[in-house]
Amino acid sequence: MTVSPFDHPLLSALLGDMEAARHFSVEAEIEAMLAFERALAQAEAESGIITQDAASAITVALASFRLDTALLRAAAAKDGVIVPELVRQLRTAVGEPHGDKVHFGATSQDVVDTGLVLRLKSVVEHLGLLLTETVLRLASLEERFGDRTLTGVTRMQKAIPIRMADRVAAWRAPLQRHQERLSEQSRRLLVVQFGGAAGTLEKFGDKGPVVRAALAERLGLADAPQWHSQRDALADFAGWLSLLTGSLGKFGQDIALMAQGGTDIALSGGGGSSAMPHKQNPVKAEALVALAHFNATQLSGMHQALVHEQERSGAAWTLEWLLLPQMVVATAASLRLAAGLAGQIESLGH
Amino acid sequence: MTVSPFDHPLLSALLGDMEAARHFSVEAEIEAMLAFERALAQAEAESGIITQDAASAITVALASFRLDTALLRAAAAKDGVIVPELVRQLRTAVGEPHGDKVHFGATSQDVVDTGLVLRLKSVVEHLGLLLTETVLRLASLEERFGDRTLTGVTRMQKAIPIRMADRVAAWRAPLQRHQERLSEQSRRLLVVQFGGAAGTLEKFGDKGPVVRAALAERLGLADAPQWHSQRDALADFAGWLSLLTGSLGKFGQDIALMAQGGTDIALSGGGGSSAMPHKQNPVKAEALVALAHFNATQLSGMHQALVHEQERSGAAWTLEWLLLPQMVVATAASLRLAAGLAGQIESLGH
Amino acid sequence: MTVSPFDHPLLSALLGDMEAARHFSVEAEIEAMLAFERALAQAEAESGIITQDAASAITVALASFRLDTALLRAAAAKDGVIVPELVRQLRTAVGEPHGDKVHFGATSQDVVDTGLVLRLKSVVEHLGLLLTETVLRLASLEERFGDRTLTGVTRMQKAIPIRMADRVAAWRAPLQRHQERLSEQSRRLLVVQFGGAAGTLEKFGDKGPVVRAALAERLGLADAPQWHSQRDALADFAGWLSLLTGSLGKFGQDIALMAQGGTDIALSGGGGSSAMPHKQNPVKAEALVALAHFNATQLSGMHQALVHEQERSGAAWTLEWLLLPQMVVATAASLRLAAGLAGQIESLGH
Amino acid sequence: MTVSPFDHPLLSALLGDMEAARHFSVEAEIEAMLAFERALAQAEAESGIITQDAASAITVALASFRLDTALLRAAAAKDGVIVPELVRQLRTAVGEPHGDKVHFGATSQDVVDTGLVLRLKSVVEHLGLLLTETVLRLASLEERFGDRTLTGVTRMQKAIPIRMADRVAAWRAPLQRHQERLSEQSRRLLVVQFGGAAGTLEKFGDKGPVVRAALAERLGLADAPQWHSQRDALADFAGWLSLLTGSLGKFGQDIALMAQGGTDIALSGGGGSSAMPHKQNPVKAEALVALAHFNATQLSGMHQALVHEQERSGAAWTLEWLLLPQMVVATAASLRLAAGLAGQIESLGH
Repeated sequence: MTVSPFDHPLLSALLGDMEAARHFSVEAEIEAMLAFERALAQAEAESGIITQDAASAITVALASFRLDTALLRAAAAKDGVIVPELVRQLRTAVGEPHGDKVHFGATSQDVVDTGLVLRLKSVVEHLGLLLTETVLRLASLEERFGDRTLTGVTRMQKAIPIRMADRVAAWRAPLQRHQERLSEQSRRLLVVQFGGAAGTLEKFGDKGPVVRAALAERLGLADAPQWHSQRDALADFAGWLSLLTGSLGKFGQDIALMAQGGTDIALSGGGGSSAMPHKQNPVKAEALVALAHFNATQLSGMHQALVHEQERSGAAWTLEWLLLPQMVVATAASLRLAAGLAGQIESLGH
Repeated sequence: MTVSPFDHPLLSALLGDMEAARHFSVEAEIEAMLAFERALAQAEAESGIITQDAASAITVALASFRLDTALLRAAAAKDGVIVPELVRQLRTAVGEPHGDKVHFGATSQDVVDTGLVLRLKSVVEHLGLLLTETVLRLASLEERFGDRTLTGVTRMQKAIPIRMADRVAAWRAPLQRHQERLSEQSRRLLVVQFGGAAGTLEKFGDKGPVVRAALAERLGLADAPQWHSQRDALADFAGWLSLLTGSLGKFGQDIALMAQGGTDIALSGGGGSSAMPHKQNPVKAEALVALAHFNATQLSGMHQALVHEQERSGAAWTLEWLLLPQMVVATAASLRLAAGLAGQIESLGH
Repeated sequence: MTVSPFDHPLLSALLGDMEAARHFSVEAEIEAMLAFERALAQAEAESGIITQDAASAITVALASFRLDTALLRAAAAKDGVIVPELVRQLRTAVGEPHGDKVHFGATSQDVVDTGLVLRLKSVVEHLGLLLTETVLRLASLEERFGDRTLTGVTRMQKAIPIRMADRVAAWRAPLQRHQERLSEQSRRLLVVQFGGAAGTLEKFGDKGPVVRAALAERLGLADAPQWHSQRDALADFAGWLSLLTGSLGKFGQDIALMAQGGTDIALSGGGGSSAMPHKQNPVKAEALVALAHFNATQLSGMHQALVHEQERSGAAWTLEWLLLPQMVVATAASLRLAAGLAGQIESLGH
Repeated sequence: MTVSPFDHPLLSALLGDMEAARHFSVEAEIEAMLAFERALAQAEAESGIITQDAASAITVALASFRLDTALLRAAAAKDGVIVPELVRQLRTAVGEPHGDKVHFGATSQDVVDTGLVLRLKSVVEHLGLLLTETVLRLASLEERFGDRTLTGVTRMQKAIPIRMADRVAAWRAPLQRHQERLSEQSRRLLVVQFGGAAGTLEKFGDKGPVVRAALAERLGLADAPQWHSQRDALADFAGWLSLLTGSLGKFGQDIALMAQGGTDIALSGGGGSSAMPHKQNPVKAEALVALAHFNATQLSGMHQALVHEQERSGAAWTLEWLLLPQMVVATAASLRLAAGLAGQIESLGH
């Protein structure tokens, strides 16, 4: 099914990003969940919670595990998460006597949230690279055309001459601040979630923090107390995504306005029309504007989901799933389009 | 790819609706587009714009047409819409001498928007049926448990006894107003879009309105002047979708609050937990709340898209594609979940 | 204080509307509340719930009632609504033996919601008049300039010539559909809210519906069962407000784009700049765009507030207060600006 | 007028914050604008742009300046900003020969944006203090009741016992991350805006950066290149405001759920009902939830406003004015309410 353009076989060529989307495939999600269960078993063995034999049995079984998708689908409908059924299948796969050590002391949310963070770590890297690329492309435009002039436009009216560098800097400078912001917020975002049934790691006595730290280390994440009902890092990241698409939307809007006519810009490769062969539609520029408005829209929902009642809110948590992956892909697409659009600019200013 | 839970092979079992999603598959979209082009050729022949031979050739060619998906995907990226490439393929399929009569006088937006409305017509029927079903289920609860009592709760505090019928009516009555609203707005929504390059049907001289009326009739839609830059009917429909999920979210929220403990409700079939086997999570009720917040979030973007510049806004139009299909599926899922949840209620009140 | 531009002594000249704002003053709110209490006493006397003497005593006391604002302010902070304290003051004013008949059988929400609807009735009339005026102004532009031509613009690119009437119709036609929508939804909106403590009119035995109908009639509202936790009519009205500002935002955007340069439009009375005396900023057009985005933003919150838990949600109800009045004033301002902008157009097309 | 509850003489006692609102009064705004013009004259004299005599004349005139409010109001309607008229009045007040040196090289946006940042500097201090106070109150609850137990609640269902400290930490920990975030983003937010007509400081030749740095220093702000069309710092700050109210909304929601019945919490000073004297409504808790949803709603609009076309967007800029001040006051109110609510808690857990 292809309800979302990000998943659409045709439209995703414009509005999607394959690499970002890949991290939200079922395969990537299950893989991250299995990585969690494997690292957990090993961390628990290391801390003396389960035996090394149990950990080895789990590691071996996970390596060749084949899941039953139909049962997972039925479980998603019934339980709201796939983890209880996934754990059941894993335990069966491990078998006696170690099966019941799979997922020991953990809860669904630990698996889902840490599984998400593991993938966000890759997402952050991917977006970081795309962002660097876009900054470089804009810097190159600045270098090539910065000394030319342009009539500045304020409140949609011709103002006074400016240097082309002035306008390009307004596209580039926010992106560099976004690089700074990403680095600041990553250390709050890329942390393990591990709390057990109600956040207290009650199965581990005094050893809870030790197990959690070992789990985090094995997963390549920072350690932190459980945050199952504290969703600020995710909402903040969503804000960063929308800041980025907002800045790129401004770039797109400017390009579309420059391309209305006149000679301020020369663009190659505009889009064709089914009725008017003479047209060169600024398709990438328009898509940047659309994606900016899209993310600004979704962001509101991610902040609504901060009101996460008690130890775990099924409703607020589910809401995040409906919003965040698409925001990530929209942002990757936006960066990809912006770099592409910068590359289509053959001339700026006079 | 599965960025959206509505497209997700597992989560769509909870949050999706197969029948509604079907209308947003590529297959359904292309089929609607071909229906447009076929009906257009026939309407144009009927009005003497093209020959009956041309119309027949087009009809025949469309019946066996095989599209080249890879080229359509590339075109989506380049043109922002697939129509120019689809028309090119269609014209090739029809061949000389009638190929250039395919899509005659139409533009991409005519195909895309009318193609959407054709599918919304089926969507409206589907949602209407689901809504009726949900109203009936609630009416049945009212009949079975209406005479029992319950302590009313205002501002999260126990108030005074009410009849169970009072609370159930608060779930049912808005749904019946939504039925009324749907019937009112359908006649503004289910109308053909046909304007040509810039909305003037300039290829048809005086015959534009006649061709348009014939086209509408063949498609089973109402006739209306072009509305390519007037998106109020779509935004209004989005509002209806969100009103509906909002009302069902209230039902879900109430059920989740009743199911917190005590004996106000008995529910069968709650969701399991991976850590706490004793729990019966009110998964459907939570999903109703999440979907309500989801649609309320998206609605904002559909209204932002009303600022549709000049004769056609690529940005605002693309934004709709990112929002409306998911709102439709969220609403169908919500109705499906609500009917299911009503069916799980074994007892209400005392 | 002047946190909102709608209340701002200076900015409200641009962004506000005095007549619409007047209905949200404390004075208007209290007046509507007193109208409710007066009509209630009379309806209850008519139905034999209280004596005619009590109703007369209440009517007389209300006529000369002076409220203690400081106590009301303190009560707002403590109770979340001013009604309990207002009723206390009213009962004191009426005195023995009839004081306790004030507000008999009613609850705060009855007073607040019906008080709101009473003012919305005036708001609907005011907006309806402004809307008619704007439609007429646009129709006049169509008459004066409709036969001229203009290059249509699709996807921000020059397309083909259109008649000026084509573009003006795209501004006018949605407004006429909004007139239709307002008339459809008014009968669901302009209804009394009367339910008592938990919606059951428990103080009146069998006579509840009779009292409610009499109350509605005296207030000039339609009668309907209580809707204290069913907020769909308000959310739907908010949607209508945003549809309207969205359509006017499109008009504003088009004007701002036409006024960028060239000769498609001649506008009188543009805004001045502190740095560039040669500029004529299309201030009203920009404000229309801003107000469209503002209402589209707020609308989301009004739909979030549909998840109104149990018999009364303090949180969701309070959220409406933060959103709806400003949406109303934004809409009135938008209509006022649009009519003004239409009046500044001295020439359109060629 | 009192369209917004933040400005409402009665409701602002619950939903407003006097100190925060004070910074958005006309008086504070004009004062900040005059501070800008004074500092600009002095910075320009220091840099040799204008004479010391001119700067002194301006400083003296500003000290006793009386503005004509009626003309400013008319100008707001006509120009969309009050600055052109304010500058005209200031120049008249300074008189010959130095009048034309007022506002030299600056533009309206410099005055408005820097004037806003000056007030945000005070706002940041005020919110910082309130936040510290709230963190302390929660820490005190943790200290007093942390060792008690409570049944944890996940997905609205009883889970397992947790320590009261676990739940209180989930209220406190995000607030401490918000302190960290505020300190990170303040250095991007509290910077001068100075660019002149189109951002190039074209009146100053090579001396532009020197004048700007001197201006920033005199105003106590950091220096930075003009950011008139780069609104990321404001949108990011809006995100911070909404993160904060979101976290406090979770606290409010939890309190309201705990106060539903049972003995998990003892609260003093709940709100009264006009119909049910026995009730103690958790008014502050509900208001926290409402304000969280309010800010989450507004945030979307602040991000929509990032698409700020060309050198200055009247529409996007005006949109910020409609949103940000209210978000600030909502946040201050939320902190005030949260501290108050924490103070009303007499007992937690068992």
